[in-house]
Amino acid sequence: MKRIGVFTSGGDAPGMNACVRAVVRAAVYHGLEVYGIMRGYSGMIKGEFVRMDSASVANTVQRGGTILKSARSQKFMTKEGRQQAFDQLVNNGIEGLVAIGGNGTFTGATIFEQEFGIPTVGAPGTIDNDLYGTDYTIGYDTAVNTALEAIDKIRDTADSHDRCFFVEVMGRDSGYIAIPCAIGGGAEIVMVPETAMSVEAVIETLQNSYSRHKTSFIVIVAEGEEEGNVHNVARRVKAALPQLDTRVTIVGHIQRGGSPTAADRLLASQLGIAAVEGLMNGMKNVMAGIVDRKLMYTPFDDTIHKRKVINQSFMRMVEILSV
Amino acid sequence: MKRIGVFTSGGDAPGMNACVRAVVRAAVYHGLEVYGIMRGYSGMIKGEFVRMDSASVANTVQRGGTILKSARSQKFMTKEGRQQAFDQLVNNGIEGLVAIGGNGTFTGATIFEQEFGIPTVGAPGTIDNDLYGTDYTIGYDTAVNTALEAIDKIRDTADSHDRCFFVEVMGRDSGYIAIPCAIGGGAEIVMVPETAMSVEAVIETLQNSYSRHKTSFIVIVAEGEEEGNVHNVARRVKAALPQLDTRVTIVGHIQRGGSPTAADRLLASQLGIAAVEGLMNGMKNVMAGIVDRKLMYTPFDDTIHKRKVINQSFMRMVEILSV
Amino acid sequence: MKRIGVFTSGGDAPGMNACVRAVVRAAVYHGLEVYGIMRGYSGMIKGEFVRMDSASVANTVQRGGTILKSARSQKFMTKEGRQQAFDQLVNNGIEGLVAIGGNGTFTGATIFEQEFGIPTVGAPGTIDNDLYGTDYTIGYDTAVNTALEAIDKIRDTADSHDRCFFVEVMGRDSGYIAIPCAIGGGAEIVMVPETAMSVEAVIETLQNSYSRHKTSFIVIVAEGEEEGNVHNVARRVKAALPQLDTRVTIVGHIQRGGSPTAADRLLASQLGIAAVEGLMNGMKNVMAGIVDRKLMYTPFDDTIHKRKVINQSFMRMVEILSV
Amino acid sequence: MKRIGVFTSGGDAPGMNACVRAVVRAAVYHGLEVYGIMRGYSGMIKGEFVRMDSASVANTVQRGGTILKSARSQKFMTKEGRQQAFDQLVNNGIEGLVAIGGNGTFTGATIFEQEFGIPTVGAPGTIDNDLYGTDYTIGYDTAVNTALEAIDKIRDTADSHDRCFFVEVMGRDSGYIAIPCAIGGGAEIVMVPETAMSVEAVIETLQNSYSRHKTSFIVIVAEGEEEGNVHNVARRVKAALPQLDTRVTIVGHIQRGGSPTAADRLLASQLGIAAVEGLMNGMKNVMAGIVDRKLMYTPFDDTIHKRKVINQSFMRMVEILSV
Repeated sequence: MKRIGVFTSGGDAPGMNACVRAVVRAAVYHGLEVYGIMRGYSGMIKGEFVRMDSASVANTVQRGGTILKSARSQKFMTKEGRQQAFDQLVNNGIEGLVAIGGNGTFTGATIFEQEFGIPTVGAPGTIDNDLYGTDYTIGYDTAVNTALEAIDKIRDTADSHDRCFFVEVMGRDSGYIAIPCAIGGGAEIVMVPETAMSVEAVIETLQNSYSRHKTSFIVIVAEGEEEGNVHNVARRVKAALPQLDTRVTIVGHIQRGGSPTAADRLLASQLGIAAVEGLMNGMKNVMAGIVDRKLMYTPFDDTIHKRKVINQSFMRMVEILSV
Repeated sequence: MKRIGVFTSGGDAPGMNACVRAVVRAAVYHGLEVYGIMRGYSGMIKGEFVRMDSASVANTVQRGGTILKSARSQKFMTKEGRQQAFDQLVNNGIEGLVAIGGNGTFTGATIFEQEFGIPTVGAPGTIDNDLYGTDYTIGYDTAVNTALEAIDKIRDTADSHDRCFFVEVMGRDSGYIAIPCAIGGGAEIVMVPETAMSVEAVIETLQNSYSRHKTSFIVIVAEGEEEGNVHNVARRVKAALPQLDTRVTIVGHIQRGGSPTAADRLLASQLGIAAVEGLMNGMKNVMAGIVDRKLMYTPFDDTIHKRKVINQSFMRMVEILSV
Repeated sequence: MKRIGVFTSGGDAPGMNACVRAVVRAAVYHGLEVYGIMRGYSGMIKGEFVRMDSASVANTVQRGGTILKSARSQKFMTKEGRQQAFDQLVNNGIEGLVAIGGNGTFTGATIFEQEFGIPTVGAPGTIDNDLYGTDYTIGYDTAVNTALEAIDKIRDTADSHDRCFFVEVMGRDSGYIAIPCAIGGGAEIVMVPETAMSVEAVIETLQNSYSRHKTSFIVIVAEGEEEGNVHNVARRVKAALPQLDTRVTIVGHIQRGGSPTAADRLLASQLGIAAVEGLMNGMKNVMAGIVDRKLMYTPFDDTIHKRKVINQSFMRMVEILSV
Repeated sequence: MKRIGVFTSGGDAPGMNACVRAVVRAAVYHGLEVYGIMRGYSGMIKGEFVRMDSASVANTVQRGGTILKSARSQKFMTKEGRQQAFDQLVNNGIEGLVAIGGNGTFTGATIFEQEFGIPTVGAPGTIDNDLYGTDYTIGYDTAVNTALEAIDKIRDTADSHDRCFFVEVMGRDSGYIAIPCAIGGGAEIVMVPETAMSVEAVIETLQNSYSRHKTSFIVIVAEGEEEGNVHNVARRVKAALPQLDTRVTIVGHIQRGGSPTAADRLLASQLGIAAVEGLMNGMKNVMAGIVDRKLMYTPFDDTIHKRKVINQSFMRMVEILSV
């Protein structure tokens, strides 16, 4: 292998640039040529390739977002689109790919490899952390810290006014972001997809706390929580407990941005290097990840079909810490 | 005057604790006794008074929220409630008040003084900055920086995905927060109550930029903007320009919290000292403020009825900077 | 066991308060009484005990430092001092201890248990991370992020002026802080106790980079690096490469302070609960830690005498990433 | 005037990029061509010119440092060097200059204009704030906030260990940074060039506080303080008051870096626009500044020879607030 391409795809995540940097520098270090592919599969189809060297990624390790940009591509879901992508890669002499993204990205890469034989090694770039094959995904630690800083600010005003705040954080399918926010943010309750806690149970817990003279409350609600969105939860609680002064805040898109934390930069750097070295060693259709502090390559087939389960003891911690 | 009381009232603002600290330490410095009154007028009516000394406010200058808490009081709007508040003050020997809050607070203080003769000197504690008699209110600088940090994070993801973000910041009656956020956040457009920009004008500006190959946009919308809320604005823009990938974020309550900036701590300290020294000099029904870097005492009557106008050149700056 | 005590000892670390909070709430949850012991062994000898309940630790999870304070105690190193400590504990009915600190603290606890039979379970509270029996210590993640934020600021000025900065971070005996700072901070070189890199090698690396037209450099130096302090290193480099515009910055004590990160709050909470539950289960002379995401209790004897080795691949990463 | 140049010179300051952006966009807005001159006068002599347009400064408003880099130029101090600079400007059709820097920069510009007739309008870019003709310089607000955040972290550890910290902040000739740090950081004492407080007075104040049972202290020392450097001060205090556990921290170069605050971005934007419009209106040898919230152009002759005096009441505030 002489020339590889790197791209970011799916929702952007802090640390993607640190990962791109590691891919580029590892390629240079090992004597490979490297091209940046703009806007994921969309740019691959259009041939938006940029030659990169060590200097291309100087002063990017600390930047949020992705310098390679990201986009969804309907066209890559068609055979015709993938054929065009393959032609572009061949015309540019690109023999292997590093894909930084999530399962949508890896699914595309798997089909692409089966059809055209271009190998891809993945790195897990998503704030959601719900990806089998790595303990943490790139961007997750930053997203949690960003959400937690928001909650710290909200607690200031919750305490000052004796209010009950319902704070929605990201996590459509899991409580990976919500749970450390609840533990670290001093929340009374956390509502996550994994437990499907009822609003009735929320009301009961708040009522108990209120009767023990607690006057301000924070309830963390994961985006994907079963009982409907955070505004509905707040409305139903207010109806049952009119004595509470309720407020809603949605932390929102800021969780995707910002300068990556030390842990995310380190993880992104490790996995970027590992992806390049995986490609050089003939790997394909695998994602580089860190499991129990050891580097692992997990087949895309597993990252897509196996489910990473959240540490159950964390739910119990929320209960203990809010006595 | 031998003994004074201090309270915070209305929405909490970063720097309120720095101001309370300055009031307490200035009182001690000048040989006055000082009581903290919990929960504003509500606590005054109930007699929730706490004796404070220099140590009571140690390690509070950097804290968000207010250690004296804040609340709205319906009862203080009645003569009966104010009579009870007066009785509590008299029983505790409190002869003068420092009120940290906004015009709602100062209106109450004015009536209270007319009826019962207890003098109040105010300090402007509100993130909104729309208070006549001071260039900046306590909490404003922090709120702007908090909103701007959120916008910085959003720009990461806006750029990465070529999106158009509509970001709502606080400011029900003015663009004081929105405008520096637009200038400092690299926004294309700012919608504020002062100019009542139409959604049609927003659409036209975005269309022009888009045709000049600009691909990501930030539109800052002040809470109180005339054309309806930020979701409506986004919906109408999307209908007119379906090629834009639009998103909405509401920065929300985090703007009220967080550790105060250097400027807010300095301002809060100046005005807390000034309020105490104003009381000692026999002042009443005035707010301490800084105008053109000079200490000024402005009658509550003026802070309530006069309007502080925003620097018109700032609107022009947004236009110039987004070419 | 009906009543336990908790104290912090040794250098303070961000997350100590989150750990104290977890200890207190876990005790309350399990029906134990809990006392805070001020200033470590020093306060234990003097009987500086404070009854704590759930409210005592409200709004502390996000605070740096330690509300229980910390101090060194010469007296506890004497039999007489330990006898006094024991008497104080007995007089107050305290039957078990949770010690948040490092090996100095655990050494004292071991002797104390052998002499007087009071069991201690430890939690690793130190920014240095060089403690066997846990992958990460409480405070480490925060310290690394604090140092990295400083380095991000320094890179701004290094780039602007084409300078070579020597940045000293904490770590007397190991490169645990220095190495992620180098990887995440885009440093060219890292000097750590583990590798004892010579100043000659530093000079050679810088000369090579300079001849490849690199113009600004960051060299991370761990406090305990063998070749003498950071000023000496900078002086010798400047003498050999006078064309470099060198500067020195010592990040210093700020690495011990600040609000703990999400990871540190989570870890502190886990280990605080685990310490209490360990005591309840009859454990003694062990430290609660997390190894490969699993809770482990490691004998003090091992935390003190075994050495945790740093991941060797990290050193190689610095080399790859600075090509 | 059809084509202008912009450069940054002297020590870098946060907000310089926001100012460059404003210069470029204002030039484009007004139909001027604009060139970036790299590395100040040094690059002007060498002809390091870069054509800039609106897109050149996209996504730079929030960045620390300066994308145009900065350097000192011995050569520009010679007639020969200035002749070369003039030739380069003429060859490139550059008819006017915007200089972002301090008095060293403005002195050079004045001589250059006298000799060669190229007009310069300045913008005050320096963290030190000691520049006549503007209430605040670009970068000052950020530097103060950076120093204050460091002090907040140090107070955590000072309180936890009952220590006395001596913290050096920047400010070779004035206390502009030190004083708000002392007021906002809860310091007991501030040593600044303006007052030349003796170490004896520091010792007396600390002794008084100590005897009133205060146990942790912060002393802010401006870089340029008369009594010798911060280590000497700490050593002399420790000799006189051996019961204090003293520590020294130098905040250092981080004060020059980091993302600019809202206030600095706003100021930089105002002054960048004003500088361009000043040039268009035929101005030369003046600096744009904001005095009492109004735009002012002050002759370089005044910025260089007049002295801006610090608000004396601030010194009194430190005394009141540390009772």
